Amino acid sequence: MMWWSSYTRDKARDDGLAAVIVTVMLIPQSLAYALLAGLPPQIGLYASIFPLIGYALLGSSMTLAVGPVAVVSLMTAAAVGQVAQVGTPEYIGAAVLLALMSGLFLLALGLVRAGFIANLLSHPVISGFISASAVLIAISQLKHLFGIEASGHSLLELGADLIANLGNTNATSLLIGLGCVAFLFWSRSKLAALLVGWGVGEGNAALVTKMAPMLAVIATTLAAWAFNLGIKVVGVVPAGLPLPSIPDIDLGLARDLIGPAILISLVGFVESVSVGHTLAAKRREKINPTRELMGLGLANMASGVGGGFPVTGGFSRSVVNFDAGARTPMAGVITALLIALTALFLTPLFTFLPKAVLGATVIVAVLSLVDIGAMVHVFKYSRADFVALALTVIAVLTVGVEAGILVGIGCSILVLLAKVSKPHIAEVGQIEGTEHYRNVSRHPVICGAETAAIRFDERLHFLNAHRLEETVADLLSRPGLKHLILNCSAINDVDASGLDVLEAINARLKDADISFNLSEVKGPVMDKLTKSHLIEELHGRVFLSHHDASSSLA
Amino acid sequence: MMWWSSYTRDKARDDGLAAVIVTVMLIPQSLAYALLAGLPPQIGLYASIFPLIGYALLGSSMTLAVGPVAVVSLMTAAAVGQVAQVGTPEYIGAAVLLALMSGLFLLALGLVRAGFIANLLSHPVISGFISASAVLIAISQLKHLFGIEASGHSLLELGADLIANLGNTNATSLLIGLGCVAFLFWSRSKLAALLVGWGVGEGNAALVTKMAPMLAVIATTLAAWAFNLGIKVVGVVPAGLPLPSIPDIDLGLARDLIGPAILISLVGFVESVSVGHTLAAKRREKINPTRELMGLGLANMASGVGGGFPVTGGFSRSVVNFDAGARTPMAGVITALLIALTALFLTPLFTFLPKAVLGATVIVAVLSLVDIGAMVHVFKYSRADFVALALTVIAVLTVGVEAGILVGIGCSILVLLAKVSKPHIAEVGQIEGTEHYRNVSRHPVICGAETAAIRFDERLHFLNAHRLEETVADLLSRPGLKHLILNCSAINDVDASGLDVLEAINARLKDADISFNLSEVKGPVMDKLTKSHLIEELHGRVFLSHHDASSSLA
Repeated sequence: MMWWSSYTRDKARDDGLAAVIVTVMLIPQSLAYALLAGLPPQIGLYASIFPLIGYALLGSSMTLAVGPVAVVSLMTAAAVGQVAQVGTPEYIGAAVLLALMSGLFLLALGLVRAGFIANLLSHPVISGFISASAVLIAISQLKHLFGIEASGHSLLELGADLIANLGNTNATSLLIGLGCVAFLFWSRSKLAALLVGWGVGEGNAALVTKMAPMLAVIATTLAAWAFNLGIKVVGVVPAGLPLPSIPDIDLGLARDLIGPAILISLVGFVESVSVGHTLAAKRREKINPTRELMGLGLANMASGVGGGFPVTGGFSRSVVNFDAGARTPMAGVITALLIALTALFLTPLFTFLPKAVLGATVIVAVLSLVDIGAMVHVFKYSRADFVALALTVIAVLTVGVEAGILVGIGCSILVLLAKVSKPHIAEVGQIEGTEHYRNVSRHPVICGAETAAIRFDERLHFLNAHRLEETVADLLSRPGLKHLILNCSAINDVDASGLDVLEAINARLKDADISFNLSEVKGPVMDKLTKSHLIEELHGRVFLSHHDASSSLA
Repeated sequence: MMWWSSYTRDKARDDGLAAVIVTVMLIPQSLAYALLAGLPPQIGLYASIFPLIGYALLGSSMTLAVGPVAVVSLMTAAAVGQVAQVGTPEYIGAAVLLALMSGLFLLALGLVRAGFIANLLSHPVISGFISASAVLIAISQLKHLFGIEASGHSLLELGADLIANLGNTNATSLLIGLGCVAFLFWSRSKLAALLVGWGVGEGNAALVTKMAPMLAVIATTLAAWAFNLGIKVVGVVPAGLPLPSIPDIDLGLARDLIGPAILISLVGFVESVSVGHTLAAKRREKINPTRELMGLGLANMASGVGGGFPVTGGFSRSVVNFDAGARTPMAGVITALLIALTALFLTPLFTFLPKAVLGATVIVAVLSLVDIGAMVHVFKYSRADFVALALTVIAVLTVGVEAGILVGIGCSILVLLAKVSKPHIAEVGQIEGTEHYRNVSRHPVICGAETAAIRFDERLHFLNAHRLEETVADLLSRPGLKHLILNCSAINDVDASGLDVLEAINARLKDADISFNLSEVKGPVMDKLTKSHLIEELHGRVFLSHHDASSSLA
């Protein structure tokens, strides 16, 4: 809230303008994402009021726009669908509770400064997760285009249900839906250029482009109202706002929702912080992860109290907010007021809004989240990371979003454990004319006849210590070997199992009358080793630099 | 089986002598550990016949003696107790199946050379696990000393049951039991010295000491047979041997036993290999972990086929085998024949063997497994490793052996993940007169005014990359900074998330007009980085040695 002390009329004007533009964009998104979450449209509006004020109070980004977003809405549908039937009051109640719990979890993480647990979601996993979720979302929205029913939380379930019901396709709905999709794609790629050609400034042209969904909404709603098109429309949306209240909490239900609430919180936080960082960097501002946790926590708690569902910072709307010139979170507060006015007075306007159009806006929005380039990039850079990404994608598509996140986290950790278990071990020699020692099989180096120097490129721990033991065992048979130097420049720690192995190696080398020397032991590692008996019983010496070791023993 | 081609009469004589001595030791152990596992005494004999032959065929140790051991017997009781009632044929059937499954699992691990998964059990965890199991075993045997009933798989259950039944204590049983415990402890510490005083050679004196349990068994059995002592005895042990047969396999039961079979296999393997290594090192022989897996696998399968329960290499009997001069696994084969003869003809001799004496031999045997020194050692060396050890101990004592192993593995992995997530990051400077660069806060070093050099002591990955980002962000505010050198000598890998962070840092430093240089990038890391755009877009240079970087930029 530091921004408030220096708030000026200028900033208020900029924030106000941005708020109007964001509101125009947020209304169709709120309705559509509520639909995606399996909730009545007005819940989408509720989730776009109090959360914005909650975030403004504690969040650290000046321009982040929170509210319902595609991936979190999909995760909400998956979580709530497991405990209640779509269309029942229990379903809405569970979604509200989920928002409240997710908010509490985020706030708690913020209070104990534990935002680092979001790092469990590695970049490749998040990238794969979002792309796969986007595909799942796009396919889940096809039913609105076709005007049919279909449900399911995986590609297979959804696809089978869609195909089974394809016979009931409503041609008008499909026409309007596909028309909308085409219009929205066209407006993304061409509208701005066209407007610039007509003399509109580039910035404004880009902003108008973002209003295309609202344009589609207005045009098709008018058409559905004027003519009897026989397609599915949103229907009567109750006017008014729910009184803020703490929902009745069913403890059994709450227990069932703990897992999903945690996953939704983590995904929402990671998505939001990445948006926040991107925008902050453009203006040399900074994001404070702890305050982001608290801001998003309060936003979700406010969503729960205000009858909404889980929310987070959204990419496209934050960019619009940023581009439209928002300067402080006051823009969010004003947006909230405008949405509240909409919920109070404008809901009759949505009665004839075709569902196919909402589906189309979601499809176009989410397809931009599919990032094939990132996948190719990861594939080229690291096969191991790509495996984690690919398994995440497969799990999301075949089982669902929650399975996807868990598989992704599990894979990343397994990959990391596998890597730290298989350290790179190199024999090193001197690069002529320097005091620098490198891998004998990569660089032209000089080696002593009676001395072998190996570099173990990993912290030495229970999962990999046996490899050092094996390497040394192989060296023992080298004829004429008198000294072994273990270059510890890349050994960042030695755990108790590692220490046992070093002691075993020391004993074995002593038996074989080969000296065992350590070089370039890092400070923190040396601190630990001196607490053990290894150093005093070492059948050799400890050298500060590898060059010292090599020249002393030569 | 390479030993067979050079088998001589001399070796046969040595092996035969060792086999006789091991048999005398193994008989009371087999009966006692069967009792500990909740099984009839003859099952202990069966588990000491075929497994020894199985191990001899594939194992790599010349002197390892396999058979029932304390910890594995306790684990068997815990596993089988969950699926069947003690005293029923189902209980015996489940124990037999467990041996078969454990054997299959070990053999499979051996065939795919996956023995490394035993590394999941870190040294502190195994140490804590064995000590805690030993305490649990000793307490579980108190009921035999007191001549009462008591059951339970945790300290609490056992203790409560013991105390509740203490009123039924049989004074004679307690007297005999405590007498035995006292005698066995005395024989351990004093008998050898006494014998040496009588002119017996040291080696033989030590061996006779190991026969003390058999002495106690003979003396008390005779007493129980001659007088009506009114204490619990082993009772009629059926003579004969079961025909080797594949047990009927109940798939539901097999599924329930998969987890326990895996845990028993891992613990048994780790215990056995450590015994094997210790003995092999004394004679400059070598243990082959893969052949150990196969040997123990075949031993357990043979145990299952021969009506026994899970077995592994035991420490005390292997030491006896070694000290008695065994030279090849033929000693095990001869031992197996001797035990088979016992099972066929000598079982009537066990009828009056007091259970209190078996309990006493177990108590004395396992208390030597409690290794407080190792715990203190780990505590002094590494608090994190001690936490894993302590939680393992607590879990074994409060919940049971399986929970203990799982908690231990889980803790070790969490500790490792926590460590790799919190890397040591040091700013480094030149040690005067050398080309060596060390931590500025540990060593007297020279630093440039416009250059900052940081060393990141860990592979750069999704769990820790943000820390590098934060460190660099803090450096950005240093006045007059023109060059940043990231010393990569301890960065053993950069994953896709780490690459993203390096690219973000590169972009940020470029914006701030500070050059971003990498030094001492390891070969495998450089191979990966060149596949990305980082190196070509680097706002600075890559230097082979840190000294090059520092002197070029000064």
